Amino acid sequence: MLERPIITLTTDYGLKDSFVGMIKGVILGINPQAKIIDITHKIERHNIYEASQVIGMSYKYFPPTAIHIAVVDPEVGGSRRPILVVTENHYFIGPDNGIFTPVFEKENNNFFKVLNLTSSHYFLPITGNTLHGRDIFAPVAAWLSKGVDSSKFGEQIFDFVKITFSNPSLSGDNIIHGEVVSFDHFGNAITNITSETLIRLAPVDAKHKFKIKYKDQIVPFVNFYAEVKDQSLSATINGFGHLELFVNQKNAVQLFNIKLGDPLSIRVEN
Amino acid sequence: MLERPIITLTTDYGLKDSFVGMIKGVILGINPQAKIIDITHKIERHNIYEASQVIGMSYKYFPPTAIHIAVVDPEVGGSRRPILVVTENHYFIGPDNGIFTPVFEKENNNFFKVLNLTSSHYFLPITGNTLHGRDIFAPVAAWLSKGVDSSKFGEQIFDFVKITFSNPSLSGDNIIHGEVVSFDHFGNAITNITSETLIRLAPVDAKHKFKIKYKDQIVPFVNFYAEVKDQSLSATINGFGHLELFVNQKNAVQLFNIKLGDPLSIRVEN
Amino acid sequence: MLERPIITLTTDYGLKDSFVGMIKGVILGINPQAKIIDITHKIERHNIYEASQVIGMSYKYFPPTAIHIAVVDPEVGGSRRPILVVTENHYFIGPDNGIFTPVFEKENNNFFKVLNLTSSHYFLPITGNTLHGRDIFAPVAAWLSKGVDSSKFGEQIFDFVKITFSNPSLSGDNIIHGEVVSFDHFGNAITNITSETLIRLAPVDAKHKFKIKYKDQIVPFVNFYAEVKDQSLSATINGFGHLELFVNQKNAVQLFNIKLGDPLSIRVEN
Repeated sequence: MLERPIITLTTDYGLKDSFVGMIKGVILGINPQAKIIDITHKIERHNIYEASQVIGMSYKYFPPTAIHIAVVDPEVGGSRRPILVVTENHYFIGPDNGIFTPVFEKENNNFFKVLNLTSSHYFLPITGNTLHGRDIFAPVAAWLSKGVDSSKFGEQIFDFVKITFSNPSLSGDNIIHGEVVSFDHFGNAITNITSETLIRLAPVDAKHKFKIKYKDQIVPFVNFYAEVKDQSLSATINGFGHLELFVNQKNAVQLFNIKLGDPLSIRVEN
Repeated sequence: MLERPIITLTTDYGLKDSFVGMIKGVILGINPQAKIIDITHKIERHNIYEASQVIGMSYKYFPPTAIHIAVVDPEVGGSRRPILVVTENHYFIGPDNGIFTPVFEKENNNFFKVLNLTSSHYFLPITGNTLHGRDIFAPVAAWLSKGVDSSKFGEQIFDFVKITFSNPSLSGDNIIHGEVVSFDHFGNAITNITSETLIRLAPVDAKHKFKIKYKDQIVPFVNFYAEVKDQSLSATINGFGHLELFVNQKNAVQLFNIKLGDPLSIRVEN
Repeated sequence: MLERPIITLTTDYGLKDSFVGMIKGVILGINPQAKIIDITHKIERHNIYEASQVIGMSYKYFPPTAIHIAVVDPEVGGSRRPILVVTENHYFIGPDNGIFTPVFEKENNNFFKVLNLTSSHYFLPITGNTLHGRDIFAPVAAWLSKGVDSSKFGEQIFDFVKITFSNPSLSGDNIIHGEVVSFDHFGNAITNITSETLIRLAPVDAKHKFKIKYKDQIVPFVNFYAEVKDQSLSATINGFGHLELFVNQKNAVQLFNIKLGDPLSIRVEN
């Protein structure tokens, strides 16, 4: 068995139905020692992009050998393949629909491989074609957590699906163009600009040097939320290392009508 | 102790209050080894029927000796009895209000017994009369998971409450009449017609032979969601083995104004 | 390691984002044996008072040495201190903003101490200043659960923040004045009057002696919900030992337009 048999779940199943509970039952039936952790079950229905962002931002906070199941699967039962992604430190199990794209990007410089899950003796007997989370992904994760070697579950493939993300771009040597890529529960708007991108222009500590422009407005760049004493739109580096637009103690997305894809630019003044 | 001390929870407590957390605290105080799994806490308030469907559809996915607590309990504190149901492979703990009816039906051919929970030394000291989930069901489940014999918790009863469910009926030898019995998070409408019922008329593989009629409309019967390329109402066998009405990637319940109890019929053409 | 390494979570993070999942990943990375229990993640945004009530009412239902993380933290990243509260039986970790006030009150007669968390080698490397739940509170809880002595995490402080709660008052020797302090998921309205307060006037069993007045209405005092056969506003002692206004099987808060802070009085007639 894996020393730390941790299995995480990211789905669009919601919390009202018994889907999530059954998945956990299946896992514990195979490996009673598994520790099952919910990342979220509130991904917007069929929003593969949103799920991919959640997985990409959270998996590194789990210890080595953690197994991450992701189920946002509009093509369930059709020809899309079930896959297992093996990286240096983690495993990922879900549909081959691009949901693990941020993992492929982050692990780009390391060895990783993708297997098509074909060893159906590790699956539950398939009932219907609507719940591969329960019938395929859960039992494969459980057997993997019990120590079955990843190579047993299927054949390596190379034509796995990736989805295209917008990345920030540089124009000249001192302007970054990025966009809003997600919202959190508090109404903060997360951009695709990270502190690693910013640091290529100037030290992030030198916040006064960065002129952030969103919708013709210059947005102050601060160290923490409560530094802003009024309800103006501001920016900070959030806990994922991403630039984030916020209003202190309020819902920025609503107050400033922020949309996914909204562009913003950052000019560095030396 | 049970080899696999798994305790599941199905309630209408919601996730905002501390009720669910306290139940888990009580269980872990008695049996720190217990694995507690949430099935759902979003049962509609006091909807015993909905809870019974969730339990009936999910419990078989848990390994033997799993203990299932269900708390939808409008009569809490009154004369309704707290019960423990012991089946061949599972335990069920909750109020005697019919919430375990699908268990009684599914276990009909096997031995099962129902005990009235009267051994109050296994309860918490009762505070108020509103939280028997915490004060009675949780500690009984925890002691049971620790290996206390089920016979210690009370006396067997035979007049336990069952609720009446509509079952599908046959007219002639080739028409099944059923109805919509629940909705899931995605807006799929689940019927009381199972693949076991269908197979009595024709092999389920022979989907073209089944003419499914709902609201004067013939509903195509397909193998999986994504097989349908438009937004027409369709049917498939879902992951519980039930016939389900759906619209691919959309909310069928909203789009077709489906109501609980809506009738549908299936004619088999040979 | 603690014999029972239980860590509870109470936050306003919601369940949509990956915040809660990451916290659990961080904890399990440090202590794979930790049992992590969600109390709730649905505290109203930045409502420190609501979180303090939830913690105050629930922590005693967890076994000794349980560690309770609470994160409702509008001043995150600013000058508010992260603290660890050590009581006779429990630990509490969170921001120094009054969130643990009910613990200070309940533990008043026992020894307890408050430490400012300054030993940053127990923290994660801080990314941004928005997620101290993940970067400070979670790892400190995990190391504590692994057996690190509480004194290692920082220095004792005495000027920790308390918030002021309204307590019920007596006028004359037979009237209690209280108020509504919280609502539950079912729309029951919980007051700050406990059975301990009532018993100072008359035995709580003698319910007919208590004349409860709310908005010029006399509210019957009953033993359990289902005792009331109509939809009138009634009162009972709830599972926390608090007097609660309810309507049987309905939402009292909505039906009677109950507001937080609404006064009620109880006269005892001998």
